[in-house]
Amino acid sequence: MAKQFVQNVTGMDEDFAQWYTDVVTKAELIDYSSVRGSMIIRPYGYAIWENIKDALDGKIKETGHENVYMPLFIPESLLQREKDHIEGFAPEVAWVTHGGEEELAERLCVRPTSEVLFGEHYKNIIHSYRDLPKLYNQWANVVRWEKTTRPFLRTLEFLWQEGHTCHETDEDALEETIKMLDVYADICENMLAIPVIKGQKTEKEKFAGAKFTYTIESLMHDGKALQSGTSHHLGDGFAKAFGIQFTDRDGKLQYVQQTSWGFTTRIIGAMIMVHGDDRGLVLPPKIAPTQVMIVPIAQHKEGVLDFAYDMKRRLSSVARVGIDASDKKPGWKFNEYEMKGIPLRLEAGPRDIENGQVILVRRDTGEKVTVSIEGIEETITALLHDIQENLLKKATAHREEKTSTAVTFDEFKSQIEKGGFIKAMWCGEEACENKIKEETTATSRCIPFEQEKVADTCVCCGKEARDMVYWAKAY
Amino acid sequence: MAKQFVQNVTGMDEDFAQWYTDVVTKAELIDYSSVRGSMIIRPYGYAIWENIKDALDGKIKETGHENVYMPLFIPESLLQREKDHIEGFAPEVAWVTHGGEEELAERLCVRPTSEVLFGEHYKNIIHSYRDLPKLYNQWANVVRWEKTTRPFLRTLEFLWQEGHTCHETDEDALEETIKMLDVYADICENMLAIPVIKGQKTEKEKFAGAKFTYTIESLMHDGKALQSGTSHHLGDGFAKAFGIQFTDRDGKLQYVQQTSWGFTTRIIGAMIMVHGDDRGLVLPPKIAPTQVMIVPIAQHKEGVLDFAYDMKRRLSSVARVGIDASDKKPGWKFNEYEMKGIPLRLEAGPRDIENGQVILVRRDTGEKVTVSIEGIEETITALLHDIQENLLKKATAHREEKTSTAVTFDEFKSQIEKGGFIKAMWCGEEACENKIKEETTATSRCIPFEQEKVADTCVCCGKEARDMVYWAKAY
Repeated sequence: MAKQFVQNVTGMDEDFAQWYTDVVTKAELIDYSSVRGSMIIRPYGYAIWENIKDALDGKIKETGHENVYMPLFIPESLLQREKDHIEGFAPEVAWVTHGGEEELAERLCVRPTSEVLFGEHYKNIIHSYRDLPKLYNQWANVVRWEKTTRPFLRTLEFLWQEGHTCHETDEDALEETIKMLDVYADICENMLAIPVIKGQKTEKEKFAGAKFTYTIESLMHDGKALQSGTSHHLGDGFAKAFGIQFTDRDGKLQYVQQTSWGFTTRIIGAMIMVHGDDRGLVLPPKIAPTQVMIVPIAQHKEGVLDFAYDMKRRLSSVARVGIDASDKKPGWKFNEYEMKGIPLRLEAGPRDIENGQVILVRRDTGEKVTVSIEGIEETITALLHDIQENLLKKATAHREEKTSTAVTFDEFKSQIEKGGFIKAMWCGEEACENKIKEETTATSRCIPFEQEKVADTCVCCGKEARDMVYWAKAY
Repeated sequence: MAKQFVQNVTGMDEDFAQWYTDVVTKAELIDYSSVRGSMIIRPYGYAIWENIKDALDGKIKETGHENVYMPLFIPESLLQREKDHIEGFAPEVAWVTHGGEEELAERLCVRPTSEVLFGEHYKNIIHSYRDLPKLYNQWANVVRWEKTTRPFLRTLEFLWQEGHTCHETDEDALEETIKMLDVYADICENMLAIPVIKGQKTEKEKFAGAKFTYTIESLMHDGKALQSGTSHHLGDGFAKAFGIQFTDRDGKLQYVQQTSWGFTTRIIGAMIMVHGDDRGLVLPPKIAPTQVMIVPIAQHKEGVLDFAYDMKRRLSSVARVGIDASDKKPGWKFNEYEMKGIPLRLEAGPRDIENGQVILVRRDTGEKVTVSIEGIEETITALLHDIQENLLKKATAHREEKTSTAVTFDEFKSQIEKGGFIKAMWCGEEACENKIKEETTATSRCIPFEQEKVADTCVCCGKEARDMVYWAKAY
């Protein structure tokens, strides 16, 4: 019986893409709809997003940002104001051409991102250095017309936050860009237990309209990389396109220096692919909607249910606790909550209760321990803490194991087939980036802040190297 | 100097529409953009929405509902599945016809509401009575192609929550519909200090596709009514259109009974028009982002700023406290925070500090009191409580004063010109509703749950009356 649930998930090493699809649907994170490329985020999936959102929103506010809400639609002429930006986004936006029965005089695109809307607003409200910095953020849905889609990882519509800020100087903007990248890295590592590499995107990979793009990159179980959050130093490109000027401290008119940064529902896909296993989802305790699931054993016997509900009440002060008192067999319940990745299962039957103990089963290691109900709050707290740490440790070890160094292009080509990150030197020329991509499908993930000189010459052309770059095949 | 700020707002009784526009822009709740009919919700406006949202989301969860997220787009064929629904919404939806460079094979509308998306999903996930009830909610943006728009009250795009539920029986659905209407009424009365009339919409005014629509109606300062939240008993109309069936407790196949209910950013407009005055916004303490604003007087003098910051720290345990230590003159600050409707202003200058006292000024009544800093926490708590109650009391008194009874159509016509609600009997025929609307522009607001027999005959046709109805000109 217990096996049936398990057999429903394709093995990770057999077909990782199918395993992923199985997990997102069977753990009831999402459902499909008749809207191509869009997904329904079901209660369990949305509760995970709410936890991420609450944590990130808290940090965004702590760092002095204010939430606002901008329109969903962008008139075509407004989108065209910044040249690089429109070039980058035009091929992938959805166009509204009719309102009710009428054809519109000007098409409206559904926002793929909101730099131009913020640009227009900032021009209205910024006049003096006293108005700076302006530190705004919005939580919104955006649409990008992707051809190939996959739940969370790449969907026509996705949910995100987008920060948009204005500063007096280039240095202030740079500091903001890095500060918010650090906030993203902190959420990934300390809540989602996903280790990340921080670095700068190459010119080729940067955001359309940005001066520099910074990124955090993570590595999935299958050895592919995933861009997990980006923070852009926009310089004064949008400011010039929109005329966002201020009178500086010396009475001179200057353009503001801007940043933008975004973090999306995509990260849920990363969390699944970093921690999941052949039994389904594995959730880090800090983000799990339910951290402890109580499964009463022989619940028809006197006192069992009362005990289970008492336990729920008692533990609710230290954890998010659920209870399944339905008439399904315990084996089914075990499988369901393993599939859903709940960090700890608490089993309690008549004999346990008599002996003043319960059984705890860890989702991450499968370990089963019998513990006394005396001091159970401390036991649970410590175990959840340990699971959280263990997941980050495991994911970091996996990434280290899957990170190699290549000095020659031949080395690069053979290593890239095994998956994982390759650290290799680069001359700084886009031609080499293009060649590497064409011949291996790998892309430059970032120029990491922590540089190591792994060779003197570019892994592709053999000329003098400028930077060490992380390369990988990516989602 | 102090006068300048005040003079910038048009008098309420001079031109109410202009007063409203002045207040929403000068209190920095919104800004306009180049997107017709859409608004930018600025930090202060969005913070108010976040407070409303948090309170309502809490109640939605307490009553057993789960949050989900549905796609933004609806394929035209899906929208057409329920006949009354498409007829009602087709004239007011925005159509996406192109994705990137390509024309779509089927147009997608931007959701005006999501019954059909939930319908399709529910068909997939509901099979047995064990799956019921399904109690879902989503927080989302929706679009309705309105010709005439006004910030918060009627915009092309607005933010809302929409609840969508499925039940075994008609009675269960009815109970849910009323329960959620009560939740809305509770938020209005106990957080926003807006008194509401609960009742049922007439056939003519009900939601496209619903069996019954229930509503809460409130009265604005200018005597016009505003629909403040609606809750629909959908019956099995959508269930039949989408084939949402379940095996009941007797093993028979049945259609589910559904409800939907929504509450929007529109309520911010109501709050402005119920409580505002000629000096600007007046916010109920429970919803105010800042409840107490500290304005130091003669802040350059030794000890004043230290005292003000100490006071902020001290009061933060009982209220949301702000401080303005900028170099603007106190008079300017007073005007700004009056415009922004902050419930209490705390002034403290050198002499006050010496005497161990501060000055408190209420926004709602303008009353100014000198109070001891001993026990200041209790004083502030009590005052905020009193302001909250006073606002509800004042608004209720205003509504009572503006509510009259009409027995004849002539009475009706003369009273409606004075504004306010009219309680009058109705025969139940749409012809009379239409005639009243044509001749007076007033509409039936609701058939209140609390019926009073104010006459025996219909106010319009003189035939036997069926119900007492609240009528008004409305937003």
